[in-house]
Amino acid sequence: MQEDRTPLKTVRIESPVMAKNRQLAQANQRVFNSHGILVVNLIGSPGSGKTTLLEAMVARLGDALAVIEGDVQTRRDAERIERAGGRACQIETRGACHLDAQQVGRAVQDLRLETDPCKVLVIENVGNLICPSSYDLGEHLKMAVLSVPEGDDKVLKYPSLFSRASVLVVNKIDLLPHVHFDVDRAVDECHSLNDGIIVFKTSGKTGEGVAELCNFLAARQAELAHGIGE
Amino acid sequence: MQEDRTPLKTVRIESPVMAKNRQLAQANQRVFNSHGILVVNLIGSPGSGKTTLLEAMVARLGDALAVIEGDVQTRRDAERIERAGGRACQIETRGACHLDAQQVGRAVQDLRLETDPCKVLVIENVGNLICPSSYDLGEHLKMAVLSVPEGDDKVLKYPSLFSRASVLVVNKIDLLPHVHFDVDRAVDECHSLNDGIIVFKTSGKTGEGVAELCNFLAARQAELAHGIGE
Repeated sequence: MQEDRTPLKTVRIESPVMAKNRQLAQANQRVFNSHGILVVNLIGSPGSGKTTLLEAMVARLGDALAVIEGDVQTRRDAERIERAGGRACQIETRGACHLDAQQVGRAVQDLRLETDPCKVLVIENVGNLICPSSYDLGEHLKMAVLSVPEGDDKVLKYPSLFSRASVLVVNKIDLLPHVHFDVDRAVDECHSLNDGIIVFKTSGKTGEGVAELCNFLAARQAELAHGIGE
Repeated sequence: MQEDRTPLKTVRIESPVMAKNRQLAQANQRVFNSHGILVVNLIGSPGSGKTTLLEAMVARLGDALAVIEGDVQTRRDAERIERAGGRACQIETRGACHLDAQQVGRAVQDLRLETDPCKVLVIENVGNLICPSSYDLGEHLKMAVLSVPEGDDKVLKYPSLFSRASVLVVNKIDLLPHVHFDVDRAVDECHSLNDGIIVFKTSGKTGEGVAELCNFLAARQAELAHGIGE
């Protein structure tokens, strides 16, 4: 009998929940593109310094930046962004471990981008290294935050996020003298999963590295707006 | 028309997945009780220092302690416990964001408690402050770890865990001079959710507070074994 040499096909089966989320994410991205807004899905552990980093970014980007804050409970993070002079809208997931595209679509309406535009929108996801990485929100890029006190062994332990992110932010570098964290190890392990990832080293507290990160996002936004305007 | 004053009843609807998990958790607890083993479900963020705390506990409890390590991927944590001289068994969830009772039941068989007994078994859950709190594994108590660099605002942002835990461990207290963390605020907010929670302040790195925590667990194990033996 002749061997069948037809190559095997991988068929991806998508659950109805994920298919619905993908459609809503695509709709969100059409809205973002129509306004020329670069959208970032910011994902990291609880306490990795995402909100402090955003406070430092508000100081540089001003009105060009808007923020959607995702938390299980409380409006604490949106209030922090507003106290720093930024624009923020809070989503409370009431138990859910990640944001979804429907929640983000509603929050975007609350931001009234037609009358009050911005250039960069950062969606700070619920503090969780696992579940948020699977739900597309319509963003242009995922930005993973790994803070120095979490340890340099985390990339391969939580590969889903680090393999899908376009940007890795190694945050709280002001704490490097006080904890063991080998930056090269973390970055090398990240490149072993994802060789195109772009790395920034920041401290939301001291502001180190925040200008470079903001410049990168502004350049990406300009590319996006230029591409859409062509 | 007379008003109907029958009190409203709250009916809890349990999904088939959760009902199955609960049954398997009850079966696990029967096994634990038959051996007089106190079982702790250790839950905290990625990088909150759970494994370092366990390494310090191995040094005190020796053979009385066994560990089940839960991670999305890698055997890194079980290898660390073994290098510290402890007994460990690794569960890799391959993407799942929490352990379940079935996985723990299988790992317990691998530990061969009949021939190689222990007094305290700690199950280090996947690093995640949200999802693991909903899945009972058959443990006698949940122990929540909150590390100082995560920030003192986390309790009310992640109430599901902190309201269900019997023990709160404020960990990495050696970093208190280097970060802003108001221990009283975190503990007060935890007591506002859960007034019976018992609090320990520890550093896995320096060993501070680890003796008190181990003594507490040993006393609870003795109570459990006494209660079963009556």
